[in-house]
Parts: sequence; C-alpha cells; structure tokens
Amino acid sequence: MIIITEPGATEEQIEQIIARVQEFGLEAQVSRGDSRVIVGVVGQNEVLRETPIASMPGVEAIVPAAEPYNLAAFRSRGAASTVEICGVSIGADSAVALICGPCSVESREQLLSIARTVKDCGARLLRGGAFKPRTSPYSFQGLREEGLRFLAEARNETGLPVITEIMDARDLPIVERYADCLQIGARNMQNFSLLKEVGRSHLPVLLKRGFSATVSELIMSAEYILSEGNMNVILCERGIRTFETGTRYTLDLTAVPTLKSKTHLPVIVDPTHAVGVRAFIPQMSLAAIAAGADGIMLEVHNSPKAAMSDGDQALTPETLARLFPRLRAVANAIGRDL
Amino acid sequence: MIIITEPGATEEQIEQIIARVQEFGLEAQVSRGDSRVIVGVVGQNEVLRETPIASMPGVEAIVPAAEPYNLAAFRSRGAASTVEICGVSIGADSAVALICGPCSVESREQLLSIARTVKDCGARLLRGGAFKPRTSPYSFQGLREEGLRFLAEARNETGLPVITEIMDARDLPIVERYADCLQIGARNMQNFSLLKEVGRSHLPVLLKRGFSATVSELIMSAEYILSEGNMNVILCERGIRTFETGTRYTLDLTAVPTLKSKTHLPVIVDPTHAVGVRAFIPQMSLAAIAAGADGIMLEVHNSPKAAMSDGDQALTPETLARLFPRLRAVANAIGRDL
Amino acid sequence: MIIITEPGATEEQIEQIIARVQEFGLEAQVSRGDSRVIVGVVGQNEVLRETPIASMPGVEAIVPAAEPYNLAAFRSRGAASTVEICGVSIGADSAVALICGPCSVESREQLLSIARTVKDCGARLLRGGAFKPRTSPYSFQGLREEGLRFLAEARNETGLPVITEIMDARDLPIVERYADCLQIGARNMQNFSLLKEVGRSHLPVLLKRGFSATVSELIMSAEYILSEGNMNVILCERGIRTFETGTRYTLDLTAVPTLKSKTHLPVIVDPTHAVGVRAFIPQMSLAAIAAGADGIMLEVHNSPKAAMSDGDQALTPETLARLFPRLRAVANAIGRDL
Amino acid sequence: MIIITEPGATEEQIEQIIARVQEFGLEAQVSRGDSRVIVGVVGQNEVLRETPIASMPGVEAIVPAAEPYNLAAFRSRGAASTVEICGVSIGADSAVALICGPCSVESREQLLSIARTVKDCGARLLRGGAFKPRTSPYSFQGLREEGLRFLAEARNETGLPVITEIMDARDLPIVERYADCLQIGARNMQNFSLLKEVGRSHLPVLLKRGFSATVSELIMSAEYILSEGNMNVILCERGIRTFETGTRYTLDLTAVPTLKSKTHLPVIVDPTHAVGVRAFIPQMSLAAIAAGADGIMLEVHNSPKAAMSDGDQALTPETLARLFPRLRAVANAIGRDL
Repeated sequence: MIIITEPGATEEQIEQIIARVQEFGLEAQVSRGDSRVIVGVVGQNEVLRETPIASMPGVEAIVPAAEPYNLAAFRSRGAASTVEICGVSIGADSAVALICGPCSVESREQLLSIARTVKDCGARLLRGGAFKPRTSPYSFQGLREEGLRFLAEARNETGLPVITEIMDARDLPIVERYADCLQIGARNMQNFSLLKEVGRSHLPVLLKRGFSATVSELIMSAEYILSEGNMNVILCERGIRTFETGTRYTLDLTAVPTLKSKTHLPVIVDPTHAVGVRAFIPQMSLAAIAAGADGIMLEVHNSPKAAMSDGDQALTPETLARLFPRLRAVANAIGRDL
Repeated sequence: MIIITEPGATEEQIEQIIARVQEFGLEAQVSRGDSRVIVGVVGQNEVLRETPIASMPGVEAIVPAAEPYNLAAFRSRGAASTVEICGVSIGADSAVALICGPCSVESREQLLSIARTVKDCGARLLRGGAFKPRTSPYSFQGLREEGLRFLAEARNETGLPVITEIMDARDLPIVERYADCLQIGARNMQNFSLLKEVGRSHLPVLLKRGFSATVSELIMSAEYILSEGNMNVILCERGIRTFETGTRYTLDLTAVPTLKSKTHLPVIVDPTHAVGVRAFIPQMSLAAIAAGADGIMLEVHNSPKAAMSDGDQALTPETLARLFPRLRAVANAIGRDL
Repeated sequence: MIIITEPGATEEQIEQIIARVQEFGLEAQVSRGDSRVIVGVVGQNEVLRETPIASMPGVEAIVPAAEPYNLAAFRSRGAASTVEICGVSIGADSAVALICGPCSVESREQLLSIARTVKDCGARLLRGGAFKPRTSPYSFQGLREEGLRFLAEARNETGLPVITEIMDARDLPIVERYADCLQIGARNMQNFSLLKEVGRSHLPVLLKRGFSATVSELIMSAEYILSEGNMNVILCERGIRTFETGTRYTLDLTAVPTLKSKTHLPVIVDPTHAVGVRAFIPQMSLAAIAAGADGIMLEVHNSPKAAMSDGDQALTPETLARLFPRLRAVANAIGRDL
Repeated sequence: MIIITEPGATEEQIEQIIARVQEFGLEAQVSRGDSRVIVGVVGQNEVLRETPIASMPGVEAIVPAAEPYNLAAFRSRGAASTVEICGVSIGADSAVALICGPCSVESREQLLSIARTVKDCGARLLRGGAFKPRTSPYSFQGLREEGLRFLAEARNETGLPVITEIMDARDLPIVERYADCLQIGARNMQNFSLLKEVGRSHLPVLLKRGFSATVSELIMSAEYILSEGNMNVILCERGIRTFETGTRYTLDLTAVPTLKSKTHLPVIVDPTHAVGVRAFIPQMSLAAIAAGADGIMLEVHNSPKAAMSDGDQALTPETLARLFPRLRAVANAIGRDL
C-alpha cells in the first residue's frame, strides 16, 4: 500500500500517518518531495485494511497493495497449475475437459443412462446433484445420500470421475465417501465456513463464481480453500446477474482471460445455467473454449422434457454428440486438445 | 399457473399438455376459445416448476402462478405482522426501531462503552458481530464466543436486546445461548441449510438481502425460515450491487414499499453498508424512514479511526446524537413514533 | 494527476515519464524517495487522459486528478447554487419545488385541466412532453409544436412555468419560443451535440441522469452545458438500470447527497419513471425529500387509465392532493419549506 | 396481446375490457372458460401499449404480443440477411469481416500508415473516428471534416471501405460525402432523431448497442432505421455495464446468438471497448467468432502509447498480424471463412 499526502499536509499529520502504520508493526518507507510525501508500507499490509487510513487528515489518496491473495496469485507460481481428478488433468496445457451430466440425480436408471451416453459423447467427467440448492423450500431438494450412491455406481461402471455439490459443512464426510470432486455452488461462494471446511478435504474443489461476485472476490474465496491446505481448486464462470433479461444470466467470458492473468488456477465455464436457453448453449460452449477455458460443464438429460429441475436448458444426447466434434475443432484451432 | 396454447395448437398437443398437468396430480381447468385453449392449473403448482411446460409443442405462453411463497405472503395474513425481540416490537404500527452498535465486537470495553452511548442516543437494540464474514481469510474473523459473552454482558447492563450474526449452522447452540436475535448476513441469504436451521430456533431472525438478490428471492429465503416453524423474521434492505461505483452499493429504498406490498413481515434498512461513506448515512437514514422502514440499523463506533473493520463508515456517537431528533421528526411527519 | 513509479524503475524510465508529461506542456513535480519516485503533474491534466501513461514501463500506479469538471464542481463555488425558472427558485435553501404534469401533452383540454389541478395541489412548475422519445417507432411521438402551444397556453392561464423535453438540436428555436425550461431526457444525457446546443440557450436546463450513467458522468454532461456558457442546470435522478425487475428501474436516492457533495448544482428526483408502479410513488417522493432533494417531479394524469403513455404510473389528482401535506411535513422535518 | 381475466371477474368488468380493446379499433377474440375469460387481441397491438390495460379491474395478467418490431424480426424474412458495404458482404454465410483502424483519426500520416498496415493484416474494412463522443467537453473531439477527408484518401489508396461515426443529424450531408458506412455510437443508440435521419440515408448503418440497452431495445432502435426505408443495418455488441470492474464493460457474447434468433440483421462484435485491456482482446475476438459473430471490429494503432484516445486498448499491428491466422482457424472450425 502506498499513502500519498495532500500538498498542504502538516508535519504533524504526516507524523500521525507514519505512527499509525508503525502501530501495526509495519515499516513506513517515506519519500519526501517538494509538495507531497509518499509513505510506502512494507510488511503484511492486510491489517491496514482494518483501519481507515484514507480518512486521516492530510491523506490525499491510497494506492492499494497488490490483490490480497497470495496462494492463488499467478505470481506465487509463475505458471498455470493443473488439478487432477482421478487421473483426469484440468488446466495449463491439459486437454480441455468436457464435464457432463444431469442437473439433479433423479433415479438410478436416469443417471446410469445419462452417464453411459455422455461417456460415449466424449465427456471426461460426470456431474450430477444429490443436494440441490433451491430458491423455494417447496421444490425438489435432491435424493441426498441415495443420489450419492447412484453417482458412485455410475462412476464405477463408466470410469468417469464424479463431481457433486456440497451445501453444508456437516455433509462433508458423507460426500467425501462417494464423490471425486466437491462443487461449491454460486450461492455458497462466500459461505466462508463451508470454504474453510472443504479446504481441509483431500478432494479437489470446483468453485463456482457467485452471480454477483467480482473476479477478485472469486479468487479471494479460492484463497480461503487454499489457505486451509487444499491446493486443488478449479474456478468456474457460470454467468453474472445484469439488467439484461433476454438470457437468465450474462455469461462473462472475459472472466476467463482475466482470471488466468491473475491466478494460476484452472478456469472452466458452465454455459448451461448462464444462458438458460438450450438453443444458445452450443455457441457459448464454442466461445468459452475459444476464450481459453480449461473445461466446459454442460447439463445433459436424456429426456429434458421430464427433468425434475432445469429441463428447459439441458442438452439432449443427440445435440451433445453433434456438438462434440465442433468443440474439438475450435480447441484444435487455438492449439489445444479436447 | 395458466398455460396458453398457440392459435394453431393441435388437439393432440393440447391433450398432452393436459396429461402432463394431471401426471403431477393437479387439476387442469380447460377454457376453449375460438383460437386458443387456456389451461388453468389448480393445486400445488410448485411441482410444475420442475418440468419444462413452456417448451412443449403447442404452448404459446405460461402465466406463472402467484409468487411461490405462502407463509410470507401478505395475503396469508392480510395485515402487517410484528416481531418482538425481548419486548421491543418491530413492524406494523410499532415505533420505528433504532438498532445500533459496532460492526465487530472488538473488546469488552469497546462494546460496553458503545452500548451505553447508543442507549443514551435512543437506540432500542444493540448490534455487534462476534462471527465476521470477511472476504479475505487473512482479515480479522471476530472474537467468536468471547464476543458473544461481551454482547450478553452489554445486554444485561443496558437492557438493550442483542442482535448478532450467525454464519454456520453448527454455531447455533452457542449463539442461542447469548443472543436475542439471529442475523443472517447478505452472503448467506441463500445458504439454504443455514436458513432451515435458524427456522428451528426459538429466536427471531433478521434476514439481510443478498446484494444481488431480487425482492422475490429475499421473500423466498424468508419462506425457508417460516416453513420450518419460526414465524419471527425481519427483512433487511442493505444495498444491491450495480454499476455505480460512487457508493459501495446502491441502497434500494423502493424495496421497502415493494416488500411491504408482498409480505406481512417487518422491513428494516441498514444504510451503513450500502452507502459506505459516513457523510451520506444521515440523509439515507432519514430517507429510509420516510420510505416506510420499520427500523434502521446503524453502525456506531466510539473511535471509528481505530475500528478493526469498516471504520470509514461508522457514525460517531456525536453524529448519532445529533441525528436522532431528525429521525424522530421525519417519523412523526409520516405518522409514526421512533 | 500523480504518477508513482515501481520500486525498481530505472532512471531512464523515470526520465521518459517526465519527458512525456513535459511534451504536453505540463509541469512535472518530482519527489524522489528511497524506493519510489512520485511525479505530480501540474497544469491542464486533461490532455494526459489522452495518452496511456499507465502502460509506460516503470509506472506502478496513477492517482487521477480531481474529477475533470471545473464549472460544475462544488469547490468552484463553495456553496450550493440556485436556478431560477421564471421566478421559481430551485436549490440551496429554496423551498422544495413540486413539478407536476402529464407524461405527454395529449390535447388542449387534457393539459389545461391537469395544469389547473396540479396548481391547486401545490405544484410550482408544470411539466409535459411535446416531443416524446419512444422505444418503438410505431408509438405515439408527441404533438410537437401543437403540444408546445398548449403548454404555453397552460402557463399563461395558471402562471406555472413550463418544462418540456427537447430531443433534437434542430428543434431548439421552436422549443425556446414556448418553454421556460429545457429538459434533456435520460437517453440523451450523452448526446454531446445536443448538450452543447442547449449550453448556448438562454433557458435553464433540467438534465436527467442516463439510466446507466454514473454520478460522475452526469456531472460531466452538466459540464458540457456549463462550458458553453449556460450556468442554469438542474440535475435529476430518475432511476438506474439494475438486475432487480420488481420495479422498472432502481431509484438511486444516495445519488442526491453524493451529487450535492460533488457539485453546487440543484438536484431533483423523478420517482415516477424509476418506480413505474403508482402505489409506491408517494413513499419514494417522501424519501427523496428526506434524502435532500431540491425538487420532486411527478407525473399526474386526470384519467390515468386513458393516458396515451405511461398511464400505469401516473398519480391521480386525488392522490396528489392527499400526498402534498405529507411531502410538506417531511420537508419541514428536515428544516425546509415546500 | 392476450388478456387473461381473474377467476372472479364480473361480466361488467369483462365487457369493459373488451370495450377498451375495441375503442382502439382492434378485434377482441374472446374465449370463455369455466373460471376465466381470455381475450386475444387481433390487429396493430402497438397502440395498446399506450393504455394501462393491466390495471383495469378484473385483469389478472397480460401476455404481451410478439416483440414489437416487424421489419427487423427474423420472421419477416425467415433467413439471415447480408449488408453490402462497397462490395464487402457482411452476414448470413459471408466470410467473417475484420474491421480495423484507429479509435480517432489523428493525422493524415497516422491514418494512411494504419490503413496500409491493417489491409496487409487481412482487414476488409477501415474504421476511424472523425467526430468523437467524449465524456468530457475538454477532451479531444476529433478532426471533423479534415478527418473525413483523410478517411476518404485512405479508402482511395487501400480500397478498404470506410466506417465512421456520426453524432449529429446535421452532419449527415458531410459524412455521406466521404464515408461508406455510418456508425451510430453506443451513447446515441436511443437518439431517435438521429436514428430516423440515418434511416433516410443511402449508406449502410452500423448500430452499436447502448451499454445498458437490452437486446430487444437494440433491435427496436434498428427498427427505427428500417422503418424509414434504410434496410442496411448491422448490429454491434460492444459490452454492457455491470457491477464487474475488472474490465471496462462486460462483453455479452450471448447477445450474438440471441440477436440472430430474433432478427435477420448481421451481428458483429467490438471487443476493444468492452474489454479495455489490450491483453485480453485476442481471446475475446476468437470467442466472438466462435459465438457466431459476422464480423469483428478492432482498434489498431501503430503507436498505441502516443494515441490521442484509448491507447491502452489498441492492438499493435504486430499483434494483429499474429492474431489473424488464429481468427481464421476458429472461423474455419465453425465452418466459416474469414
């Protein structure tokens, strides 16, 4: 952090600013010019965020320190990192990963059928929700442990590693028993208790961006997980809330290169929930790969019209099968596999 | 829900629409016109939200049923309700309640001193955070149980009931031991596990609006709490996220009359976090009361410059003392006490 | 503007930064510290906005100069200014002004009837649109000059000065012939040609905030008008576009104290278009006055159900008559007249 | 438009609804069911937008008619259309068009040099601003007619057709004398006077989306131009304003397939202004093509550090040269040329 004084700041004001910095055990590097004094703060600047330096008399401006994440920062590694989920590698130069499955696990038959289908279509991982965050308390809330069992069975049969959402820290032991990767949903991106808890898990974590979280806040939430020791975090752009009502959310694909410039973590895109209109999902999947996404997460349902949640946006297996070669062609065009 | 068919819908399409409705155990009231058929759905419409009726062939449009909350809906009581917190009544024709205190409980002395001060200034309830949701894992996270003990001590000394945030369902027993009202923060407004848990508490709940939640979503989150049996929920507008960067959030005061038209629950306003600039908080507090808020929550710190969180936005006791008569004058001008 | 160099900036980089500043005829005040050099730029900083200093090698950060408006800035006068419209004074300590009238001038009878009514209800100015900006080319576009004539007739009969929108610089001579104050609509807030043109008019200008303009952009648009010599500009908050769909726009009342801290110009509020729901307009009018607005603009229609535009949001004369004493009570509560 | 009555609507209320429809010269198709009556409105529904049907007693809901644009609607042609600019075809199956040039025309040498460069890099059209919309009245406002002359000279030398912005209807004759395509900037998207004026021009029009305009509003603005007889309109997505401050605007690539499903007009993307960070423009250009854009507009400057406007975001000729084969590869991957 750099503190810049006003042209007319008094010596006493400057002393008080320096004293405040030193109170927090930090070093103040003072540069005196003709009209202004600049105080560079050396040390764990974080604590100063707690104190309102900007409103001290004599302060003209504060230039914040670099973003307050360390472990997640690109500079901390200097290269993109990869996350492995049961042998499937995501990030850096790995092939773009296709992650498919139903929104909710609805039955054993439904899930096994979809799992076989998406494997045939080229998916490398299986997604499906057993615990469902629903806006209404009266909506279907998921099959819970039974759903987890079906997911494990589908993984065992198809070999596709399984990603599923966790909504409550108390469910961690049971979810860990069945799943290969924990998903934190958009609504829980700033559920800091849950972030800390999955930070202590041995499973990788797929962290979805809250629909009104900035890119920096997403990385700060990843930092919560990393700071507890779990270094296997994948970030996921899934649409932000804007004034535009033509689509359900606005898919923010610029977040892909932005995140990749700020953090070494892999970045995937979930166009399904953002777009909310089945017909536009293929184009947005192609665009996400062109923007540099390390993976694409797609909802697929073998009978979208009967789906128990979000059926209007799920792809049919037929659409997925037609889409796959086009996804691969775009990946190849930018020098990646899929 | 009302389903409207396209002018050219075939008899077979219409049959299938009706069949789909009946599959879910609902009654279909069919109105046949010259060019269109209208299917009114009678029964627990909620289940139909799970199925994509809108994309069935022959469907032109869906008119959603009334908002899917029942217990929270104004129509369910036909009058505004009040919530009592240890004898302080909020809502309906009750006096506008002033809720004050520090952002974080930082020490016994700090809290007791502020509690005495805000009581003298006219506050009816005391707020203070013992568990703090912080964007960065490296920021001060609160004094936890020690903070709760200080809050209880402040309540015992001043008589002001205590409101404090709960962030993790596992902390409920300990928070219930000390607090008089549970606060759910904006970031947890859609932490459905936590909502259900506080729905089983005997304490009233102050539910803050997520900073990108719609008014309807806020009421749906209240419905989660009510549906578990806890009918004492107070809603709180605290600013939404918009493109405007001149203030930290945009305080959405129109949410006050909007919420009051849709729900019977009391509605209060927290201008502190929305505005984030100390100088504008008095005007926005006055405006909130004029807009019909049942209470105002204000951060107060006896030494804002040394505050461990959010010091730039806290009012000084002197400002609060000068503000109080103006708040009362505006309350009186619209026919309420304070 | 202050330019801060990186700790490791080379002497050559620093020389180039200074040279760039001097190239533009500006003075560079250099402060050399132990690790950084700070370059304060003296002179008409504006030109530097045209050149990408921030991406020069060795630059760590730029602290922008004070906001780039001069004439509109509060500091340029040090006190709030007032604008007079035919003897009605708006701003500073003047009484809060009530500005009422129909959205569109629809006929002579309609306008005269409404004008008489709103005068009886306490309005001090009459508003009405003769040129209407409509999203669709097929919607009613206003009575044009005929509408202006009716407005002038209403002014002559009631004595209420007339405010009306101008959409095209070419219409200025004709609008000036009839109106007492020119309104620039939200969609034209950054129609810079039009701003310059009304800046040369002898009439005061009511400048509405674009629905996604920041507070700073609104003031910059006012600066366009002032910089052409017309110092009589009134700013108007009328709602911004956000994700919330429960109301048409989100009325940003915090803009009132924010604008008043940055500029000396009077600030009024138009709750009608922001809220878009008739039932909530009274509360938001009261809140606007409590927030410090210098005036309130309200749409009134003697027969809202038959209105040719925006009928769902217009107040009836009866509602306005009941509202007026409450508006006055709130104004008095904060020490103002109405 | 379809009007649905409440279950308990009285016969008198229903009569009044029907009467209101007929008052406007429209036909009311009445479907009576057991509990509700549905009134389908046949005819130029537009006029009903002027009257508040929704608040009539007995009305439960209104289902709006199809979007109120006709000429721009996809259904009006049933196929994508192309727009020709001096022999370069944009839209439908045409090759993706690369449109490059400086933000502002700054001098004859600058423009000619850039024009030659971008032609060599594969650009098919030249862009450059002679009239510049600037937030501040004190910023460089463009070379005006001199700039237009340089553009014409660059066109004559390179053969690249020229696109330039028009900000004021009064400038149309002079701009038409030099340019090959008129650009309407984002801030003028709802300057309806200007839209009507360019609707009478013989030149094609590139219409940029306002940064807080919905997709529907963009099409309605195109309809203004089409309704005056000019059928050669190209739409341009250039970023919308959201809460995210990591990039200047949020590029809404989902607008590409959304626009193409609703209208037959060609759709291009300008990533430069949306992203505002040079480093991310290549990825977003690739993504725009993958999303189905019919063209890409890129700012290029031979010396971005000395640019008189927006230099931080312009590509260098070297970057453009390296980017071109990757753009073509992605275009080919989705079956298009470039």
